[in-house]
Amino acid sequence: MFNVAMMGVGRMGSIHARNIAANARLTLKYVVDHQPEAAARFASELGAEAATLDHVLGDASIRAVFVASPTSTHLDLTLACLRAGKAVFCEKPLDLDLAKIRAARAELALPAAPLFVAFNRRFDPHFRALQARIEAGAIGVLESLHLVNHDPLPAAHAFIPTSGGLFKDFTIHDFDMARWLLGEPVSEVFAWASCLIDPVVAELGDVDTAKLVLRTASGKLCLVSNNRRTGYGYDQRIEAFGAKGALRVDNLHTTALGAWGAQGMLADRFPFAFIDRYADAYRAEVDHFADVLEGKAAAATGYRASVESLVLAEAAAESVRRRAAVAIPAFEE
Amino acid sequence: MFNVAMMGVGRMGSIHARNIAANARLTLKYVVDHQPEAAARFASELGAEAATLDHVLGDASIRAVFVASPTSTHLDLTLACLRAGKAVFCEKPLDLDLAKIRAARAELALPAAPLFVAFNRRFDPHFRALQARIEAGAIGVLESLHLVNHDPLPAAHAFIPTSGGLFKDFTIHDFDMARWLLGEPVSEVFAWASCLIDPVVAELGDVDTAKLVLRTASGKLCLVSNNRRTGYGYDQRIEAFGAKGALRVDNLHTTALGAWGAQGMLADRFPFAFIDRYADAYRAEVDHFADVLEGKAAAATGYRASVESLVLAEAAAESVRRRAAVAIPAFEE
Amino acid sequence: MFNVAMMGVGRMGSIHARNIAANARLTLKYVVDHQPEAAARFASELGAEAATLDHVLGDASIRAVFVASPTSTHLDLTLACLRAGKAVFCEKPLDLDLAKIRAARAELALPAAPLFVAFNRRFDPHFRALQARIEAGAIGVLESLHLVNHDPLPAAHAFIPTSGGLFKDFTIHDFDMARWLLGEPVSEVFAWASCLIDPVVAELGDVDTAKLVLRTASGKLCLVSNNRRTGYGYDQRIEAFGAKGALRVDNLHTTALGAWGAQGMLADRFPFAFIDRYADAYRAEVDHFADVLEGKAAAATGYRASVESLVLAEAAAESVRRRAAVAIPAFEE
Amino acid sequence: MFNVAMMGVGRMGSIHARNIAANARLTLKYVVDHQPEAAARFASELGAEAATLDHVLGDASIRAVFVASPTSTHLDLTLACLRAGKAVFCEKPLDLDLAKIRAARAELALPAAPLFVAFNRRFDPHFRALQARIEAGAIGVLESLHLVNHDPLPAAHAFIPTSGGLFKDFTIHDFDMARWLLGEPVSEVFAWASCLIDPVVAELGDVDTAKLVLRTASGKLCLVSNNRRTGYGYDQRIEAFGAKGALRVDNLHTTALGAWGAQGMLADRFPFAFIDRYADAYRAEVDHFADVLEGKAAAATGYRASVESLVLAEAAAESVRRRAAVAIPAFEE
Repeated sequence: MFNVAMMGVGRMGSIHARNIAANARLTLKYVVDHQPEAAARFASELGAEAATLDHVLGDASIRAVFVASPTSTHLDLTLACLRAGKAVFCEKPLDLDLAKIRAARAELALPAAPLFVAFNRRFDPHFRALQARIEAGAIGVLESLHLVNHDPLPAAHAFIPTSGGLFKDFTIHDFDMARWLLGEPVSEVFAWASCLIDPVVAELGDVDTAKLVLRTASGKLCLVSNNRRTGYGYDQRIEAFGAKGALRVDNLHTTALGAWGAQGMLADRFPFAFIDRYADAYRAEVDHFADVLEGKAAAATGYRASVESLVLAEAAAESVRRRAAVAIPAFEE
Repeated sequence: MFNVAMMGVGRMGSIHARNIAANARLTLKYVVDHQPEAAARFASELGAEAATLDHVLGDASIRAVFVASPTSTHLDLTLACLRAGKAVFCEKPLDLDLAKIRAARAELALPAAPLFVAFNRRFDPHFRALQARIEAGAIGVLESLHLVNHDPLPAAHAFIPTSGGLFKDFTIHDFDMARWLLGEPVSEVFAWASCLIDPVVAELGDVDTAKLVLRTASGKLCLVSNNRRTGYGYDQRIEAFGAKGALRVDNLHTTALGAWGAQGMLADRFPFAFIDRYADAYRAEVDHFADVLEGKAAAATGYRASVESLVLAEAAAESVRRRAAVAIPAFEE
Repeated sequence: MFNVAMMGVGRMGSIHARNIAANARLTLKYVVDHQPEAAARFASELGAEAATLDHVLGDASIRAVFVASPTSTHLDLTLACLRAGKAVFCEKPLDLDLAKIRAARAELALPAAPLFVAFNRRFDPHFRALQARIEAGAIGVLESLHLVNHDPLPAAHAFIPTSGGLFKDFTIHDFDMARWLLGEPVSEVFAWASCLIDPVVAELGDVDTAKLVLRTASGKLCLVSNNRRTGYGYDQRIEAFGAKGALRVDNLHTTALGAWGAQGMLADRFPFAFIDRYADAYRAEVDHFADVLEGKAAAATGYRASVESLVLAEAAAESVRRRAAVAIPAFEE
Repeated sequence: MFNVAMMGVGRMGSIHARNIAANARLTLKYVVDHQPEAAARFASELGAEAATLDHVLGDASIRAVFVASPTSTHLDLTLACLRAGKAVFCEKPLDLDLAKIRAARAELALPAAPLFVAFNRRFDPHFRALQARIEAGAIGVLESLHLVNHDPLPAAHAFIPTSGGLFKDFTIHDFDMARWLLGEPVSEVFAWASCLIDPVVAELGDVDTAKLVLRTASGKLCLVSNNRRTGYGYDQRIEAFGAKGALRVDNLHTTALGAWGAQGMLADRFPFAFIDRYADAYRAEVDHFADVLEGKAAAATGYRASVESLVLAEAAAESVRRRAAVAIPAFEE
């Protein structure tokens, strides 16, 4: 059993904290939040203590810290924890500013304690099954990939200015999935984006619909589709095409119920919120982190995944401006 | 090219006549109907001639006659045609009265010219694929069978008194499918029936909902479900369970279109009328008959299938009265 | 938080104990098992204590006992706990002997402390969604029901003599589902059974394949299909037909992954074991029991459900012997 | 009944000729082919006469000519027929050379007799259902479109040099579908292409895998995926995303049969060849042409569709060379 602390009990922090509480290998000892009452309430619900960051870092029994505070604080908190010898589970992203992350490369690339940056989709059981089949050669050499990532409802307007924009906030997941599934680095990016859903998004300088084509050095191609409002749920699909066949992860349905009527057959609704669609993935990434703490696994994603996905996000934005493909330099260790 | 004549241009006669016209091996020469204007109109549409039965039977160039007149005339017309040396394609049933059919056994069991009684479902490409897989051993020894046969809308009240009742009019298809798929005769029948949909049906002495269990000598079991009103289309499904797995033919959808909305995914509506659901089967049974005329195939169904399915229908009615299983005597050639 | 004890840590006891541990409203204080080492090991894993039954019943802090010991001990343990004022969560069945249960009616029908007999399928989210839609009138008046309940692999031979036979051990679930979904009591049962899978089962006096038709006083009909070996997973399906449409719960797939190849599209495998297929249901029934302890809900199933389903099981066995329908007397409170 | 003639009885000519023969409004009078024996054999099978082009054009009873000869002859034959006052059904494309088509604009854009250039996918019942739903407002304003168009097996090497390349030969269908479904002209094209399947294709100067993004003036986005070898059938899918939901046409299966085994459920194989997948569309486009002859409909596609799709194909090729988006000038009537 490893004692851990949680920094931040907003939406993601609450999810992770409950998964920690249900995980047989982790004990949630401390909860830290800039709103002391929220921390106290949450701590009491889960049998933990509210505490300050300093207290947590000074407690030698604490093996790891979960960082789920606002994005702007991720990097500083992560570095502070690593310096105190604590392992870190950092909710993605490490930061929205590539330069700041790169500046901390010495501490992040080969960290003193394990560092895991949580890209949840790699832990979704459906996508993992797809990845395992590709790796097992079920479709021969992978040739192309289609990623559909559509949000059920637009983000709040207030969130947009600090979100980093569609590519850094949302497509970042697809960039990571592409890297994970393609098996080789992306060498060029083309992106087109529109504001079709909500004109306020455009006023705030962002877009809500995008289509991208990624290409690797060997010519593999990856389509990405993003959309900020489906109305019908969280549309999360992947298709992989290879020399011997294809694989598809289709959308989930909340139950296996079908209703037959004069209009046809209505299969039950799709999970709407990301916390429902990826509930299993959130549990699994906490379990993965327990494996990392036990030394059974290396962290699946950390400095490199953070840098590579941000590089692609910046290239995508540049591609939109230039209306042309943008080349991606090789990653420097 | 075989010259053929059509007796009766009601609903089934029209379907068969158009399939004959589109079949490269058959030429529709004559159309006979007790309403001369209907015959004339139809003949002109399909490039045939209106004629009388006598004229048809006296024309040596006519190789075969399609009997699609009212059920009560099927048997006499079939015998008249066979006696004139014409092959017969008789829309099912030969007759509703088992005694009358058996009385003509000498002429029907080993007919002078080919006799085909059209049980359309044996020619449905989906059910044929299922039957072929069973026969090829795909699920090992067949152990049990589920047949769902539900009508979209109740029959007209006027039709019920002459229909022979649910078991002879509708379940007859399932009895034939059971015999075809089970690979051995049914030895016992249990049936329960209710009038749940339309009280007038009960007043007319019939039922509209039935569930049956059939059993073979070796213990194979077959469930049958009948229902006279789905509201959502013609529900036609088969499941087969064997030692090595199972096979299912699910309902068709009119198109491969799905609509995604807040309630889930709506797959397109089901075929509603039997003429839509079994359009391919009607074409295929006419083609099978052309094979029979060419000597390439024996008629798939005739005297024996007619007798065996009627015996099961009568046993089902008796089972309902006795609330007990009814044993089926072995078929006598 | 309610303190509870677990009697028996075999297959079902382990499942329930882990679900108790993960439930925020229940605390597992004691584990009792006739194998003290198993109890100790399990208690230590879940942070509980190994104890004796007497110790549990004497501890005033214990609010409820979970009975998951061998079936033959369920009834006596349940009665002992109720007499000690403890609420009881009894794994189904209470007993295989109807007379013994009826003899304890005074203590079971209106128990001194809450009594819940766990029929897990009522808590499956898919079946619950179906039941809720029926109740909400989505398909109008329910007319008929099809229950498919097929085991992936035959039970061990050693289990059969003490199992109560197929109807009491396995079909019992379908009898309970039929009562739950039909909305009125079953008035007649017809059953046919065969031994098609494993001849040893027949030597041991049992059957492995059965088809049943249940009927209610108003004429509603229910088909049940049982089979002890699918080879492809735990086949668990329900179809409900009503005046305005139909509902189906189809089999689940372990993931949403499909593989496309020359043979077609392979949707991922089905859950194989009941503990996988009904994992959510087991969690939900423990949560329901917590509701019962809090006074928020009455126990969904207890004495009456136990008696009614056993009555149907005995009638089914009699129907097989008599090859006829067997009438079911009205339940006496 | 309109008398028509067929030019060319290769693969497409044979399909169209059989559909003409089965169409109640058309009579196939002549068959013309540069191989006289092929023409004679085919004419005799379908009850037509073999003839020369001059004979056909000189026969006043001939109302229309189907042009299904080699692509390089389409334009000249079409013009010859139009000059002779015959309506023309021209298999797509009119020509691979945009300049040649534009040079004949005076005769093609407002032809003396009806001119239909057959883009078959517009007549597929599944895609038509999707288009009708979009038009009826089922998903509100259309925002983006995904077109998957993957061939089962690579084209013969001998065909490649005369094919016009992937974009003109194959993507041309997607360009036409995009125009049809988007409801406004494409204003920019980005394309990436690779040769991943067969290195001989690259030696012959072509590619076998492509991903494109099309954009309209109002910002609607359309993804296109092309691939020359699936191994599993003709992968033909469309997804449309709008303000109120989404629509998908998924792949067809050859039957509704599913096989359940330890690996999961295998839905039956996909149509492999385009002549199977689009059999209904080929029938429907011949019927549309009969409507055109009767004056009931204007030809769905002709000069403009031919020019617009070729312009997009040339822009796609230029985009690959320039690694940038290419702007599309407005169509000049």
